[in-house]
Amino acid sequence: MVDLLSLMAFNAAYAEAIDSDALERWPRFFTEACHYRITHVENEREGLPAGIVWADTRAMLEDRVAALREANIYERQRYRHLLGVPVVASADAHGATARTPFIVARVMATGETEVFATGVYLDRFVKEGGELLLAERVAVCDSTVTDTLMALPL
Amino acid sequence: MVDLLSLMAFNAAYAEAIDSDALERWPRFFTEACHYRITHVENEREGLPAGIVWADTRAMLEDRVAALREANIYERQRYRHLLGVPVVASADAHGATARTPFIVARVMATGETEVFATGVYLDRFVKEGGELLLAERVAVCDSTVTDTLMALPL
Amino acid sequence: MVDLLSLMAFNAAYAEAIDSDALERWPRFFTEACHYRITHVENEREGLPAGIVWADTRAMLEDRVAALREANIYERQRYRHLLGVPVVASADAHGATARTPFIVARVMATGETEVFATGVYLDRFVKEGGELLLAERVAVCDSTVTDTLMALPL
Repeated sequence: MVDLLSLMAFNAAYAEAIDSDALERWPRFFTEACHYRITHVENEREGLPAGIVWADTRAMLEDRVAALREANIYERQRYRHLLGVPVVASADAHGATARTPFIVARVMATGETEVFATGVYLDRFVKEGGELLLAERVAVCDSTVTDTLMALPL
Repeated sequence: MVDLLSLMAFNAAYAEAIDSDALERWPRFFTEACHYRITHVENEREGLPAGIVWADTRAMLEDRVAALREANIYERQRYRHLLGVPVVASADAHGATARTPFIVARVMATGETEVFATGVYLDRFVKEGGELLLAERVAVCDSTVTDTLMALPL
Repeated sequence: MVDLLSLMAFNAAYAEAIDSDALERWPRFFTEACHYRITHVENEREGLPAGIVWADTRAMLEDRVAALREANIYERQRYRHLLGVPVVASADAHGATARTPFIVARVMATGETEVFATGVYLDRFVKEGGELLLAERVAVCDSTVTDTLMALPL
């Protein structure tokens, strides 16, 4: 049975990989075939498939990391995710579905810090070889205004 | 015994009801006779009973939701609660008292996002028919400056 | 075995002591001989020992509280910590090492609220007489710009 604490521990490790600039670890939180998408609340409500970011394999996530490295995005700013407690919709021995709220702060080189994004993860977790992985994570942002820097993983 | 994890799961569901605009579910987190109040730290310290918002039945909470619907408040902005881990003051099989910190971000239609409110919930939980409910929630805001929009549930 | 939930409960009590202006309780979360430091991500990466704040005994932490009281810092502003779930690096019956993200909001007397600091705690916990205590907490801020008010405990 996938329990609440293991989902919380998973999410904590996920956020740390992004915030500590260990981006190369980020794709490994997903299954090989996966669904990762960043969208916003109005697109999601209207069922619009196109999001700000979209991937359906781990390899696509790896490509995105490579692109972020090329853009040197972490040279100019840092991020800090604070995640809430998941609301578990279903869970059994093989996986779970859950919704988890997030707030992400962005810290500029000048020290200026702001709330960069808020929203909720819509997640489907699976157990593969005893390991918990994301088969699906849709990050639904509360803001409908797209920041071009949103290419950063949420 | 009401344990820490069940309080955390309760609070996560509570916050989600507000942030996902499922406001009609919000009163159901309370007992029929309840005490809900939004106040700020100086009023609370001086024992001033009048808060920004005040209710002592679930029906009053339902009235508040109806008023918010009439004001179309969720058309113009969205909210995102991030809640901390409760500090449990007492707990037994029938209930618990706890204090839980919160940060609420507000997202305007323009995409502008700001920290809207911070503070702590002073809570008394009870078990009724096996279900955990709030007999009392006092949301003590850190800011003493009242925002008239604070009518939104915290 | 020191488990995740006990670390979360510890951190919640720690943050509450600071945010509820019960600063005198803050040093008691540490062992007598301890290491407490506030630094930022670049200093930490380059192994620079000097941080913004530094202490290696509980008595030094008590001195800091006395200094903060003299400066009346809590008359002018309030703080609110929101802590994430610890990423536990190691744990046994005697202690644990963990990393925990934080966001701290500052609320001015005018009501203005901003994200004051974000970062991660690098922690070493020990059990002493059955009680969990911090032998080491290094608060690594994401911003490299030092706010002189950072003298406040993180």
